[in-house]
Amino acid sequence: MRISGALLALVLGACASAAGAQAPPARPEPPSMQDILDHSLASDWRPLDPANTLYMDLPAGRVIIELAADFSPAHVANVRALAAAHYWDGAAITRSQDNYVVQWGRVEGDPHDRGAAQAHLADAEYERAIGDLPFTRLPDPDNYAPQTGFTAGFPVARGGGKTWMTHCYGIVGVGRDNPPDNGDGSELYVVIGQAPRHLDRNLALVGRVVQGMELLSTLKRGTGALGFYETPAERTSIRIRLASDVPAAERVNLEALRTESTTFRTLMESRRNRRESFFVEPTGHINVCNVPIPVRAVR
Amino acid sequence: MRISGALLALVLGACASAAGAQAPPARPEPPSMQDILDHSLASDWRPLDPANTLYMDLPAGRVIIELAADFSPAHVANVRALAAAHYWDGAAITRSQDNYVVQWGRVEGDPHDRGAAQAHLADAEYERAIGDLPFTRLPDPDNYAPQTGFTAGFPVARGGGKTWMTHCYGIVGVGRDNPPDNGDGSELYVVIGQAPRHLDRNLALVGRVVQGMELLSTLKRGTGALGFYETPAERTSIRIRLASDVPAAERVNLEALRTESTTFRTLMESRRNRRESFFVEPTGHINVCNVPIPVRAVR
Repeated sequence: MRISGALLALVLGACASAAGAQAPPARPEPPSMQDILDHSLASDWRPLDPANTLYMDLPAGRVIIELAADFSPAHVANVRALAAAHYWDGAAITRSQDNYVVQWGRVEGDPHDRGAAQAHLADAEYERAIGDLPFTRLPDPDNYAPQTGFTAGFPVARGGGKTWMTHCYGIVGVGRDNPPDNGDGSELYVVIGQAPRHLDRNLALVGRVVQGMELLSTLKRGTGALGFYETPAERTSIRIRLASDVPAAERVNLEALRTESTTFRTLMESRRNRRESFFVEPTGHINVCNVPIPVRAVR
Repeated sequence: MRISGALLALVLGACASAAGAQAPPARPEPPSMQDILDHSLASDWRPLDPANTLYMDLPAGRVIIELAADFSPAHVANVRALAAAHYWDGAAITRSQDNYVVQWGRVEGDPHDRGAAQAHLADAEYERAIGDLPFTRLPDPDNYAPQTGFTAGFPVARGGGKTWMTHCYGIVGVGRDNPPDNGDGSELYVVIGQAPRHLDRNLALVGRVVQGMELLSTLKRGTGALGFYETPAERTSIRIRLASDVPAAERVNLEALRTESTTFRTLMESRRNRRESFFVEPTGHINVCNVPIPVRAVR
C-alpha cells in the first residue's frame, strides 16, 4: 500500500529529499524554498505598514490584506477611509463563486446609514505610468501581457509604457458597475482560483491577501447566479479595521520579502527551474501567478 | 450604497446587459456563453461513457470525474480496476493544501487488505505521441509550452511531436514517489488553485472533475506539512465507483461539449475577446486553463 507519508514530498516536490524516498537521490538536491529563505538577510524583508494593512475579521479568524497604493491610490484611499469609518461593521461576504472570486460588502437592508462610499467615487485606475517603480522581471512569455514580474511586493504586468497589477490568486479588487469610473471600494473581491487575467486593466486592484486566505477560499459556494448566496443565513459576517486603528498589542506583525531583493530573485529562479530529483522535466519557465511572495510573522 | 445586485454582472462581465447597469449599453452586447450554448447543435455534445467515469461520493455529495484514457492508458486502466474492486471503500481525503491540491487515498491502519494497487504499477505516462488525436489550438503564447489547446475534452499542450495534459483547475492526477514509474493510481489529487503547470510532464494525469468540484475545493485546509490533515477526524471519507457499476437509474447522465465542435471554437473565441460593454480592455488572449469546457445534464 502506498502511504501518505511517502507522497508528502512528491506532489509538491519542493523538499523531495526530506521525506519518504526509498533510494538516495542520484544528484544533490537543490535548495528548497525554505532553505533559500533561511539564508535571507534581515534587510531582504520589509515590515508591513499598519496604515496600509487591513484586518478583515471573520468568525473563523483573521484575514490580512496589504494595500497597493502605488497602483490605485484613489481607490486605496477610499478603502482606508471606509475602514477608518467602520463602514463595514455589519457587512458580510455575499458571494463565493468556485474557481473565481469571493466578494464582500454591505448588504441590503443594513439599518445603519454610513453612506460614506458614494462621496468618494474614484476614477478608473487600471494601469499607471511605469515611472520609477522597481521591477523584478520574469523572462518568460506570458499569455496576456508583453512583460510580467513584481513591483513592491505585488505581481504586475507591463506594456506600452504602462504597468498594472495582475489578477493572481489572493489579489483583492474593487467591484464596479458598467461605467468604468464608479467602483468606490465599498465592495471588494478576492481571486480564489485560476487567475482571471482577462480582468486585468478592467478593474481596480487594491491589495493582496497575505494571511488567512484559506478562510476565504474554503467558504461554501453560493448557489445563486455568479455564486451569490441565496439566503442571508449563508453569508459570513465580517468586520474590517485598518491595522493602525488596532491597539499595537493586538496587531499581527508581518514582514514581506522584498521583491527587489537578491533572495527573491534566487527564489524566483528556483521556482522557474525545478531541479529536485522528483522532477523529470525541470520546466524552465513560470507564470507570474505561480511565484510565491513570502510573508513571515515577526515577534 | 452599492447593492450586490448591481454588481452581479460586473465582476464576471459575462452578462453585463442583464443586471443593474443604470444606462443602456452604448453598443450591442455580444452573445454570452449561455447564448452560445443555447444555439449549439445536439451533435456538438457527447455523452460521458459510464465505463470511463468515476463517482466519488462524499458525505456532502457526489464528485464526478471523466477519465482520460487517451493520455495515460495504463494509469487509467489501473484506476478503473481499483474502482471496480472497491479498493477505495474506507478511503479518505487526506490532504487539502490551499491554492494547490486536494488528495485522497487509502489511509494508514486500514484493516482491509485489498492490496490490488501494487500489482498494477504503471509506467510513467507523462506525454505521448500526437498521433491522430484531434486538436483545437489556441493561438496565444503560453508560459510553459510551444502550443496549447484542447483534445477530446481535455486541456493539453504540444511540443516536439508530443502532447500532454495540462495541470488546470479540476484536473486529476496520480501521486507518486520519487522514481517516476511508481504511481499506481491508488492515490489521486485534484488541482484546486492556480494551475501548477510546472507539474506538467512530471505526473500522470488521468481525468477531470466535471461535476461537484466545489465539494473538494471548499474542504478545510490541512494544517500539517503540505496540507495533510494532522488528525484522522479531519479527513473526509469517500467511496469511489465506476459509473458503469452503478445501476442505470442511479447514474447522473452528463454530456460534454465536443472540443472539436464549431460551437466550442465560438465559445473559445468569445472568451478570448471580451467585447461586453463592461470591458474597457477586451484582452484578445487567453490561457488554456481559463477556457471553460462545458458539461450539461441530460434527462
